[in-house]
Amino acid sequence: MDLQLPKSEHPRIVIVGGGFGGIELAKRLKKKPFQVVMLDKHNYHTFQPLLYQVATGGLEAESIAFPLRKIFKGQKNLTFRVTKVKNIDAEKNCLKTDIGDISYDYLVLATGSTSNFFGNKEIEQNSMPMKSIPEALDLRSLILQNFEKSLIETDVIKKHALLNFVVVGGGPTGVETSGAIAELKKHVIPNDYPEMDLNKINIYLVENSPELLGPMSPQAQVKSKEFLIEMGVRVMNETRVLGYDGLTLTLQDKDPIMASTVIWSAGVKGELVAGLDRAEVVRGGRLKTDQQNLIVGYNNVYAIGDVASIIDEATPNGHPGVAPVAIQQGHHLAKNLVNIIENKPLEPFKYFDKGSMATVGRNKAVVDIGKIRFQGVFAWFTWMFVHLMSLVGFRNKIIVFVNWLWSYFSYDRGTRLIIRTFAKDRSVDYRKEVESVKEVSR
Amino acid sequence: MDLQLPKSEHPRIVIVGGGFGGIELAKRLKKKPFQVVMLDKHNYHTFQPLLYQVATGGLEAESIAFPLRKIFKGQKNLTFRVTKVKNIDAEKNCLKTDIGDISYDYLVLATGSTSNFFGNKEIEQNSMPMKSIPEALDLRSLILQNFEKSLIETDVIKKHALLNFVVVGGGPTGVETSGAIAELKKHVIPNDYPEMDLNKINIYLVENSPELLGPMSPQAQVKSKEFLIEMGVRVMNETRVLGYDGLTLTLQDKDPIMASTVIWSAGVKGELVAGLDRAEVVRGGRLKTDQQNLIVGYNNVYAIGDVASIIDEATPNGHPGVAPVAIQQGHHLAKNLVNIIENKPLEPFKYFDKGSMATVGRNKAVVDIGKIRFQGVFAWFTWMFVHLMSLVGFRNKIIVFVNWLWSYFSYDRGTRLIIRTFAKDRSVDYRKEVESVKEVSR
Repeated sequence: MDLQLPKSEHPRIVIVGGGFGGIELAKRLKKKPFQVVMLDKHNYHTFQPLLYQVATGGLEAESIAFPLRKIFKGQKNLTFRVTKVKNIDAEKNCLKTDIGDISYDYLVLATGSTSNFFGNKEIEQNSMPMKSIPEALDLRSLILQNFEKSLIETDVIKKHALLNFVVVGGGPTGVETSGAIAELKKHVIPNDYPEMDLNKINIYLVENSPELLGPMSPQAQVKSKEFLIEMGVRVMNETRVLGYDGLTLTLQDKDPIMASTVIWSAGVKGELVAGLDRAEVVRGGRLKTDQQNLIVGYNNVYAIGDVASIIDEATPNGHPGVAPVAIQQGHHLAKNLVNIIENKPLEPFKYFDKGSMATVGRNKAVVDIGKIRFQGVFAWFTWMFVHLMSLVGFRNKIIVFVNWLWSYFSYDRGTRLIIRTFAKDRSVDYRKEVESVKEVSR
Repeated sequence: MDLQLPKSEHPRIVIVGGGFGGIELAKRLKKKPFQVVMLDKHNYHTFQPLLYQVATGGLEAESIAFPLRKIFKGQKNLTFRVTKVKNIDAEKNCLKTDIGDISYDYLVLATGSTSNFFGNKEIEQNSMPMKSIPEALDLRSLILQNFEKSLIETDVIKKHALLNFVVVGGGPTGVETSGAIAELKKHVIPNDYPEMDLNKINIYLVENSPELLGPMSPQAQVKSKEFLIEMGVRVMNETRVLGYDGLTLTLQDKDPIMASTVIWSAGVKGELVAGLDRAEVVRGGRLKTDQQNLIVGYNNVYAIGDVASIIDEATPNGHPGVAPVAIQQGHHLAKNLVNIIENKPLEPFKYFDKGSMATVGRNKAVVDIGKIRFQGVFAWFTWMFVHLMSLVGFRNKIIVFVNWLWSYFSYDRGTRLIIRTFAKDRSVDYRKEVESVKEVSR
């Protein structure tokens, strides 16, 4: 059944996904002669770079999420619907969704990426991903509940496992998350759990390759590792994870680690939508597009951001899966779509690399901006400033700023509440015992 | 199996519940010759008076909750555990909990209250209570999802029901909640849903008795009703709810209301713990205690706050179930427990009534302080000031203040995100269709 949408005389562009790319594209189409239909499975935009702070009790979820309807307030040519797209029927220019069929003249996939477990179902079932608000909240509850459980566990092995926190993947998310847990251990746990032996809490960062922060400068790679070690994180490079059953993390050629908390940030893949049979899926599970973001094999289906990959001589591996690429592609595609209906020539996408950065902890961050590279306190303030400014919404900026200011002076993390159940079944059975779980599942 | 707790030479007081009363009692026992064991099913204290703002998108949950461990930071004679108490074995002075058995010398029940459905299972299953953070978040999601669903619903009756919001119970919670939904309708919905016909959104406040805010002054009762009607709430006094099947709310001698959202704030009852067979349960499901908060029939089991009721000539119905009573009883019991071990005479509890207040909406509140009664703008600022000052934690005060300031000037409610599933099964099947639900339940 067709979904009822407002009538329009203009060609219809359907954008799937309200992330950085989708939002930028939709906003740039304001007052252009299109009917824009934005679809997302959530009613909010997520500022993914700060998910790890939600997961480690530093921020409330609401401060890094923003209602999508509010973003498009006053944009008369846009209609928003909360739905999950099930299938694309490209022959009929039609999307199948949970709420009905939606036809399109132009389709743009801006669906982003999802955790990549590289086909390992056991790891997928037992480790914690951190790509969405619900996942970050679940991880926060797990970390806090494992501290609580460690106090009452009498089995020595299980108690040991409850206090071992393993982050898999040494990219920015892995570095930031393991650093944040190390700060929890140093500043929060001693106050919250005076009975706990801090020496028994271990934080591991496990990475397959010889260095951390792969795509960054050697200075950033070396310094971030130094910072982490200084903060007490056990950094294990050249370590390959083989499996995780919820209690034992098995490693290639190394001793296994007993851990009740394993956070999976070892890779992402494009969040594909079924039905694009002619599309070519390249490295990282991304859709191959041309310089105009058109999915190769189609003439009115585009892809931008993490789910897309422009592969040519200049970028044999595509562009990195980061917000600035998505934003620039959204901006660029908006211009080209206008060019199409105005019969003007199309322009190829050119990526302007603004640099990259990662934070490790208090006064500790690494920044690469072109040839300029710096680490430490100033890098940390730079990181905070850039992230604060990138947040959507004035209210969110203030709330995050207040939280950071508060944490800076109090050494505290204010939002460490267990307020939801877990996204996944886990072999540790504590969750069955707490009320919050029952309240959700009944 | 006995739960392992730190060794102590002092008598052990076990406090069940980290609400207003339990916290006050525990803090007053700091540096006193007791071992204090505090138990709660959550790891945080909930500031219940502002739950309705969480439910209506005005505040984030983290701003009205506070980690219990942080409250007792540095209190060396206190041990905190997250657990649910299953049973009291008063003969053996022992509690059965999810995490093991805990013996006590003195037991204090400060478990508060829970929604009272007066035995109507159908209403319990289909309406939304709002007594905890998870319940408030679920209600927020329901309200927002019903707006989303109304846009795509083609069945006329269901569409009508999705835009009808019924609050049952005209106490402070009911008045505040219906007022907040009316403000959502007025200030947020027109921006968020330009396609929506505002005239089709109805907000009902249904109350059994002839007036609202039963225990308050006639001036407060009349004025709050005036405010609500002015704001577009359909106030239905002398209306008795018979049943609710998830779609149809049936009323005695009146036409039924079709509504997908029914919020139940029509009553509370004491949150009892099994095993106190000799205790007398009085009006409101509360435990009858003497003037020293001792549960009648026991000599070392006390009850304070909402779960307790001191019934004598002066207070034939007990004290009201509000925070100041719980706090004063906690304070008072701490003094008496010290008196007991110092062999000093015990003092009877005397309640100092500081007054009561309720907010209806922007610039609209009602305040009774003894014989002083005022309504309107000044009452609203008074309400805000008192609630801000009562919040636990400096960070929470700032975050709530920022949110209120923001809402005041922007007419916006910043946190309207659908970020969790529902606590209960409901006949409306939209929840099955959205991703957030799948993420939680898989």
